[in-house]
Amino acid sequence: MQNKNEKEKITFNIDKEGNFSDWFTEIVKKAELADIRYNIKGFVVFQPWSVIPMELMYRDLEKELQKTGHKPYWFPTVIPEKNFYLEKEHVEGFSPEVFWVTETGAGEKLEEKLALRPTSETAFYQMFSLWIRSYNDLPFKSYQRAQVFRYETKATRPFLRSREFYWIESHNAFSSREEALKQIKEDMEITKKLITEKYAVPLIYFERPQWDKFAGAEASFAADTLMPDGRVIQLPATHLLSQQFPRAFNIKFVDKKGEEKFVWTTCYGPCVSRNFAAIISVHGDNNGLVFPFSLAPIQVIIIPIFREGKKELNKKIGKEAEAIKNKLIELNLRAEIDYSEERIGNKFYFWEMKGIPLRIELGEKELKQKKALLFRRDEKKKEFIAINSIPKKIALLGKEIDKNLLEKAEKKFNSSIVNAYSMEEVKKGIEGKKIVRANFCSLGMEAGKCAELIEKELSASIRGERVGKKEVPKGKCVVCGKKAEVVVYIAKSY
Amino acid sequence: MQNKNEKEKITFNIDKEGNFSDWFTEIVKKAELADIRYNIKGFVVFQPWSVIPMELMYRDLEKELQKTGHKPYWFPTVIPEKNFYLEKEHVEGFSPEVFWVTETGAGEKLEEKLALRPTSETAFYQMFSLWIRSYNDLPFKSYQRAQVFRYETKATRPFLRSREFYWIESHNAFSSREEALKQIKEDMEITKKLITEKYAVPLIYFERPQWDKFAGAEASFAADTLMPDGRVIQLPATHLLSQQFPRAFNIKFVDKKGEEKFVWTTCYGPCVSRNFAAIISVHGDNNGLVFPFSLAPIQVIIIPIFREGKKELNKKIGKEAEAIKNKLIELNLRAEIDYSEERIGNKFYFWEMKGIPLRIELGEKELKQKKALLFRRDEKKKEFIAINSIPKKIALLGKEIDKNLLEKAEKKFNSSIVNAYSMEEVKKGIEGKKIVRANFCSLGMEAGKCAELIEKELSASIRGERVGKKEVPKGKCVVCGKKAEVVVYIAKSY
Repeated sequence: MQNKNEKEKITFNIDKEGNFSDWFTEIVKKAELADIRYNIKGFVVFQPWSVIPMELMYRDLEKELQKTGHKPYWFPTVIPEKNFYLEKEHVEGFSPEVFWVTETGAGEKLEEKLALRPTSETAFYQMFSLWIRSYNDLPFKSYQRAQVFRYETKATRPFLRSREFYWIESHNAFSSREEALKQIKEDMEITKKLITEKYAVPLIYFERPQWDKFAGAEASFAADTLMPDGRVIQLPATHLLSQQFPRAFNIKFVDKKGEEKFVWTTCYGPCVSRNFAAIISVHGDNNGLVFPFSLAPIQVIIIPIFREGKKELNKKIGKEAEAIKNKLIELNLRAEIDYSEERIGNKFYFWEMKGIPLRIELGEKELKQKKALLFRRDEKKKEFIAINSIPKKIALLGKEIDKNLLEKAEKKFNSSIVNAYSMEEVKKGIEGKKIVRANFCSLGMEAGKCAELIEKELSASIRGERVGKKEVPKGKCVVCGKKAEVVVYIAKSY
Repeated sequence: MQNKNEKEKITFNIDKEGNFSDWFTEIVKKAELADIRYNIKGFVVFQPWSVIPMELMYRDLEKELQKTGHKPYWFPTVIPEKNFYLEKEHVEGFSPEVFWVTETGAGEKLEEKLALRPTSETAFYQMFSLWIRSYNDLPFKSYQRAQVFRYETKATRPFLRSREFYWIESHNAFSSREEALKQIKEDMEITKKLITEKYAVPLIYFERPQWDKFAGAEASFAADTLMPDGRVIQLPATHLLSQQFPRAFNIKFVDKKGEEKFVWTTCYGPCVSRNFAAIISVHGDNNGLVFPFSLAPIQVIIIPIFREGKKELNKKIGKEAEAIKNKLIELNLRAEIDYSEERIGNKFYFWEMKGIPLRIELGEKELKQKKALLFRRDEKKKEFIAINSIPKKIALLGKEIDKNLLEKAEKKFNSSIVNAYSMEEVKKGIEGKKIVRANFCSLGMEAGKCAELIEKELSASIRGERVGKKEVPKGKCVVCGKKAEVVVYIAKSY
């Protein structure tokens, strides 16, 4: 694609399950997803092969948010220092991670330091306090697509943990706690609809323990999926912020009885760069990327197989390839023809590594029989199909591919959850790269000691209590042996 | 829309031509385009009524760029200080305007200061030097949608001049100067296709004088349109950067003969926030916004006229309104129904102020006759049309409205260009809010003194020589009386 000499470096063969860290590093480089050679630590350049799918995710997300009544805003990238310090828990949680703008021009100091937003509650809420007056203004549902900046001290990796990342943040205000909780549910449904039903990545929503919630929240709900190395990764989270921020920012409304009350707020933060990491990691195989059909930058690559010296034949093949491409484009599919002078075999390997769901090969033999050879990346199967059935077939196959990817991923995910009834069993599960389900004291701060032990002995964390499926503990906390109040999931995590 | 109590403040009546500055300030506030109360000078919050059209502009621009072979990238928002200092002219031009990130967390100094990008040549080019190796890699055509940051010392105004603004920047590299010049032409064509043919705003492309080019460019080409106060505003600019940056960043390629050469670069920077300012200013009238159909956040607003106490009738009206809306949405049009409890007259004024191109009124009388009343915002005309002809009619009217807006705008624009053959005539033209065409020394630095005189005496500037239509000077420079080498346009500007 962008670098025409790229195909010289074609072969990709790394054991994804056995050596995931290398697999991830190498595929980011080989498939040109991001270039880490930008010379600021933790900042990378995202390249077309990841930007196109991430833009598709932005579109999907914005469509769902708008359908559910959210309006788009663009807030400033910088937040004044004083806003940032208004909510105590929030500032404690985020201030170590802030990048500060302090100077302009040749070194003139600014009167007030400006934070590069690490998240935008303190930007939105100062405006909410101006915009929200009465119950008529509620619910107030807003979002922005934005980058946020966090001075991560842990090792950074493209898509997984960067100092600048790409997300949507939705900030909402309601007249009651019940309405706010309904929003949490809506946010979780949007996540599942996109990440699982559309991009084929299974997940579980957890209510996070009190010691692991968003800084300033009453409760945090976050989706986890499992990466090939047995560690879970947090996907979109939604937070019940309740009235902590409204009190700090004085966001009040007059209710129907004429009484002045604080609003209730929530925030939801789907991160497209992290989603992308999970999607490619779950679906990829030893030969490279495997894109779900819905997100592939190119969904169908057409490879015309020309014969040297046969001008008339080659003209016919080219014409047929163009006709197929145009029909697919008419159906709003993303199709391209590879006319490069690369060897055919190299073209095959290259586009397999790039994760294109379908490849159409078209040569002399195929043309004679009015057929084409169709290759499916997910199953690595080939079949001949009639040329005139291609458009119809491709649309159907797209759905089938995504369904197949989800089935495979769910099978893997579900088989990775094991029960444990003792620390020994928890240890065995974690060492076997599993998500461990176990009885546990509680999600409250009083259970922090048990969580610390898990962290210390197993480098694993309490992911929380499953949302949407009540699991009743029968027995004792796997750590301390006291009566368990909750069933939790334990895993190593990103 | 977002603020339901908004319609209380409905009437808008400001003389746009006579008092443009007030008109602009007030419409930004009344129509909720941007909120200037965010408490950092020069940074504003963009609200849904401007974000939706600006997102549509982003889509249009990205589509055109992708069609012409540009690939999307996301570069970091920050640029290391050392990159920034590599190209001498560039740093001289931009460094007074840079915001610097110098600290993290509780005040730890960064080892190297980071610039919030004021433009991204110095970010892209460090990667170009890694990515471009041979003629096979050329042309290299890339872009990103991004915000850029400039510490403006002049007075800021939302959309017109902000310290953070929204644009696309396209950075391209070529093997020859001819190829680079072809790109300049393509950029100008994309601008005209969108700004003029789609958003109905006339413009002229000028080659800017040497003293007014982009810092680091060989030549700059920028579009100007005329605002209602008689000042021109610069719209998308494209710059022939030639080999200055490639030399500074060591971007070389091996040509077909095996020789190593520097590439030739160009950059193009359509700014959606500035485009938005021009579009609303050119089309708006004394009663508020007038959106082109192609950019309206809502293209058709349906107002059901219910009768108090007539439950059955109101149900029928509501049902018909929904049916009309759904048919329009099926045609990919943006349609909504105003069910608010506001008085009908207020609803009319409100949506007129908001600039919605078409309004459908539907009450008892209309329902009986199977007709609806259709109001056109651009012409302020009403007509009855058969309900079953609405979908077809609306699609046609959309095109007609945009055509009408362009015709009106072009008439105004063309009649605002006058010839001048003396300083006296230049002065008369500028005072009459015109764009003045005149003979002038040249576009070279040697003509700087004549330009300074124009600036000093008339607060106007030399916009440059018209692109695409060769105008041959016949006579003397209007300022100094020496032989004129060029015909220029002179105007006050934003």
